[in-house]
Amino acid sequence: MTYQVIFQPSGNRGKIEAEQSLLDAARTLSVELESVCGGAGVCGKCKVKIMEGYFTRYDVFSTQDHLTPPTSEEIELLEEEERKEGFRLACLSRIQGDLVIYIPPEVERAKQLILEEGREREFNLRPSVEGVYQELPAPTLQDNRGDAERLKEPLAEERGLNLFIDYAVLQELPGVLRAENFHVLTDVWQEKEIVRVMPAQKTRPRRYGLAVDIGTTTVAAYLCDLDSGETRAQASNVNAQVAYGEDIISRITFCGQKAGNRKTMQRLIVDTVNELAQKVTAEVGGDTDDIIDATFVCNSVMHHLFLGLDPQNLGGSPFVPASKGPLNIKARDLNLRMNGAAYIHALPLIAGYVGADNVALLIAEEPHKKEKLGLYIDIGTNGEVDLGNKEGINCTSCATGPALEGAQIAFGMRAAPGAIEKVEIDPETLDPTFKIIGQEEWYPEKIDTPARGICGSGIIDVVAQMYKAGIIDQSGRFDKNRENPRVRQGRTNRMEYVLAWASETGQKRDVVINQQDIRSVQLAKAALFVGAEILLEQRRVQLPEFIVLAGAFGNFINRESALALGMFPPCKPEDIYSVGNAAGDGARLALLDREKRNEALQVAREVRFVETARDESFQARFIEALAFPQNIRKMY
Amino acid sequence: MTYQVIFQPSGNRGKIEAEQSLLDAARTLSVELESVCGGAGVCGKCKVKIMEGYFTRYDVFSTQDHLTPPTSEEIELLEEEERKEGFRLACLSRIQGDLVIYIPPEVERAKQLILEEGREREFNLRPSVEGVYQELPAPTLQDNRGDAERLKEPLAEERGLNLFIDYAVLQELPGVLRAENFHVLTDVWQEKEIVRVMPAQKTRPRRYGLAVDIGTTTVAAYLCDLDSGETRAQASNVNAQVAYGEDIISRITFCGQKAGNRKTMQRLIVDTVNELAQKVTAEVGGDTDDIIDATFVCNSVMHHLFLGLDPQNLGGSPFVPASKGPLNIKARDLNLRMNGAAYIHALPLIAGYVGADNVALLIAEEPHKKEKLGLYIDIGTNGEVDLGNKEGINCTSCATGPALEGAQIAFGMRAAPGAIEKVEIDPETLDPTFKIIGQEEWYPEKIDTPARGICGSGIIDVVAQMYKAGIIDQSGRFDKNRENPRVRQGRTNRMEYVLAWASETGQKRDVVINQQDIRSVQLAKAALFVGAEILLEQRRVQLPEFIVLAGAFGNFINRESALALGMFPPCKPEDIYSVGNAAGDGARLALLDREKRNEALQVAREVRFVETARDESFQARFIEALAFPQNIRKMY
Repeated sequence: MTYQVIFQPSGNRGKIEAEQSLLDAARTLSVELESVCGGAGVCGKCKVKIMEGYFTRYDVFSTQDHLTPPTSEEIELLEEEERKEGFRLACLSRIQGDLVIYIPPEVERAKQLILEEGREREFNLRPSVEGVYQELPAPTLQDNRGDAERLKEPLAEERGLNLFIDYAVLQELPGVLRAENFHVLTDVWQEKEIVRVMPAQKTRPRRYGLAVDIGTTTVAAYLCDLDSGETRAQASNVNAQVAYGEDIISRITFCGQKAGNRKTMQRLIVDTVNELAQKVTAEVGGDTDDIIDATFVCNSVMHHLFLGLDPQNLGGSPFVPASKGPLNIKARDLNLRMNGAAYIHALPLIAGYVGADNVALLIAEEPHKKEKLGLYIDIGTNGEVDLGNKEGINCTSCATGPALEGAQIAFGMRAAPGAIEKVEIDPETLDPTFKIIGQEEWYPEKIDTPARGICGSGIIDVVAQMYKAGIIDQSGRFDKNRENPRVRQGRTNRMEYVLAWASETGQKRDVVINQQDIRSVQLAKAALFVGAEILLEQRRVQLPEFIVLAGAFGNFINRESALALGMFPPCKPEDIYSVGNAAGDGARLALLDREKRNEALQVAREVRFVETARDESFQARFIEALAFPQNIRKMY
Repeated sequence: MTYQVIFQPSGNRGKIEAEQSLLDAARTLSVELESVCGGAGVCGKCKVKIMEGYFTRYDVFSTQDHLTPPTSEEIELLEEEERKEGFRLACLSRIQGDLVIYIPPEVERAKQLILEEGREREFNLRPSVEGVYQELPAPTLQDNRGDAERLKEPLAEERGLNLFIDYAVLQELPGVLRAENFHVLTDVWQEKEIVRVMPAQKTRPRRYGLAVDIGTTTVAAYLCDLDSGETRAQASNVNAQVAYGEDIISRITFCGQKAGNRKTMQRLIVDTVNELAQKVTAEVGGDTDDIIDATFVCNSVMHHLFLGLDPQNLGGSPFVPASKGPLNIKARDLNLRMNGAAYIHALPLIAGYVGADNVALLIAEEPHKKEKLGLYIDIGTNGEVDLGNKEGINCTSCATGPALEGAQIAFGMRAAPGAIEKVEIDPETLDPTFKIIGQEEWYPEKIDTPARGICGSGIIDVVAQMYKAGIIDQSGRFDKNRENPRVRQGRTNRMEYVLAWASETGQKRDVVINQQDIRSVQLAKAALFVGAEILLEQRRVQLPEFIVLAGAFGNFINRESALALGMFPPCKPEDIYSVGNAAGDGARLALLDREKRNEALQVAREVRFVETARDESFQARFIEALAFPQNIRKMY
């Protein structure tokens, strides 16, 4: 003998053997239910409410007797008030008939899950959009409430929700309600608004969320399943705004030049995001309309450009954003290719130069929950540096310039096939060996993929190796007396080191690293170092207990090379962790766990932003930090 | 000696003579302040708060000593707590320096005003959009809050408002704040959302509201000044949807025929409203962008067609609307020609056939506040009838058909120049005299304007006069034996009465009233009469204490004629009031007084809708009511 059991609000349902406990039924039907004692009937946590007359409003029936009567233990564990309201303990109630069970939010256990890519991160699956299954009574002459009221009233009565209905949802509501005889799946955003209603058909509708990480150069999008918490697809692409300038300042300038330019910039980045949304949903055979929630992170300027906010005041002191707080914007107001009624959530900014991407890093890495003092470095055109633990977080932004991303370097390029990513130099012969992206073997063992240029991690390596080999000295100057064909005066009288000969690479010119390139790296690493140093000083400590390198760059960098250059405070290489795209992880966490959005707001408010450039000693320290560390050369 | 005094939140300001009381200053600067005792210093009602450091956030100064110290009466009338918070009594405090005064909402007296057109209606000026004057501190490196936070935080701190900022407003906020050095006028909607921010220039910005009454045939729009409560302009036009059918059922059918048709219908009515918005703002030399709030009323079907809601279920039993409750929709989501961030407020519906127009009538006429039991009749293609007083309101909808609007009558036409609007018939000669719209003198004294047809009020008159003269009998049948050239058998063998000869009218045909026309009027008046009768029966009363006729038709109808036909329960003609467009008045009241919106919701919930057609006795009563009243003929 089996009975039909339906769990609300999830709508999970199935036939359950008679005499099974409700707790067993919940497990069978994949309903998460808190039960501290594991079903022993002692903790009293697994309170559920037995619904009455839910199937049809005017045909009230009781399902109380579809369960075994309460035992004396159960009576003791529940308040009299609760029992009157129809509450039972799931572990002590056995099924004897068809049932509709409501699980109150405090009892529904959030699924503990692991975010797969990058660093492993545990999170609770509590998306902002919650799906509720509803079987509504069909209207009659006696019950001719409006469709909107029919949909909302049970949610108000049973769950105390006072909901808006999205305008576009309301327009089509009559047809949707009647498609499956008033059985619907209702998507509720933040317990505030109904953002989708679908006829409850046999196959469950897909509920996707999109997490977007908008970089100045690269945009990454992750498609997540809001019901399972899995990341189903991901893709990245170049930010189409690059056509209007590699750096953010030139984009701000462009926006200010003519009315309409800001709209142009917004359209470009929206197009990039839309292409990615299209791509990731197509990959799983879905539809962009199934994207019913979204989050995005980015630096403050990209935040403004994506939302179409006037960015002019981010371009000069005191660097004031149009809005720092978190924002929820309707997808259709941004012309985003997702369900028009969905909200896209912008994580908060910290300051004009420390954006939501840094907030996302913080909620992913959670320094505010750790005892140990960590230094978190996210390198881009601007490097963001955070130093903190439980007792507080300080952060700053360092104008590293684009050198560490491979830009403004003679042969610099992005990390793409053909880029030299790792370098070693023989201190005697000064002959290099290197690894090119797209080819397993090291050069010169094999030369399949011609070296087109050098990317960020390769630049760090080559400069460190040049220092180690004595091609450059501590101040970064070339040793003009070094007699070696690879060390020479280039065309513009600049000293340069030949990393690969034209004949070897299939290029028209030799691939070289010149004096100017060394200077760019020095400027970048000094900015980063001084930022970290000032933060450490404020905390009155000498060194962090560990260093976290975030971003794609952090994944590929050779820690020893970075230490040799003095990019960050000396730290044992084993205490340096590369965590991948932590900002993207933070965007996904905020998508899958709504509590992470509150945490982001809290963190953004509490982080102390330090304007390092305003530190009196900054200039002197900066000049000092341009040199390479003295003793590293030996240590290394 | 004069001092600068600024009142918040209105921002009203000016130079005030020293030693004037704050109450006097408020009166001088047109600030409404509650003062029950009229300034005698005994009621303690005129509590105001003296602001400190409002001018610049970081330059805190006290203005407490810019007033005379509290007298012993004042100390007695204020709680210690209040005095600590800076509260003073306006009538007892005299000015001795520059001041910023905050008036709490409970003290700010709503202006008592009179709505000018139609019936005189007193109302409180409490618009949903409130203007707040703000002088914000300019950002510095120490205070680099976001612009949105800078704007919102004082409103949160001083008035406890937790506000959203409209997305479009946010996009332009940085430039707006800086245009007048962070002095702005902020429009706050319903204490929830900032819908406009404008640089505070010397001339106050215009704050208009638009009240719209959307009829099946005619649309009327009123432009109101939200600061003065005046109706500045009004205009009406034919609903462009008329091209797709005169009646609502054919429009519902059209919507269901093809995807996209619903959008077409919506576009047509939106265009009509936009033309009116354009017209009324142009009339006062304004801009549609200055319309910052709006309300609309209409029947349930027009409500759906205007909002683009699926109307199919309004076309058949059980006549279920997509939404009955009040709705607030962004003007830009409807493509309305007003400030895009403004909300248009839809008053609630009562039932499938009793719309927001009836709710508007009720909040204008306020039967729920009256002792006397009134019968309220609004005649259109559907007649809505309400019967009620303080103890409750019942309402019904009567399928009167379009006869009373002049449609489906052989020579029927709308009330326009050339329409016969009043008729008298000599019982002996059967010769008529009548009045034509557009001409002062009665026909046949003068024939300037040729009679083109007959409008609603004329139809009521002519039928009543034909009955009185014995041309038709109590059952509505023509007296075939009456020998008079004006009573004859028409072309289709139908009996008819010649109201005007072709030779007199310049028309090709005689203007006649035929048997079919008499039947149409009988059907309409019977529906109305039975509706009223059933409502009276439910209240267990014989007659209402008074009758209110609403709508343009109600203004022109001859009460005696209507009584002679038995259109409504017998009532002394002096107890019948014509109140003009009460629905339009209700729309304006809801625009100018936000409390009226709550009242509308309350009334819509509490009105008992009676489906008269479902009354068992309806059919029998209806047939009985087709006849004209017996004794009226004598009485009349």
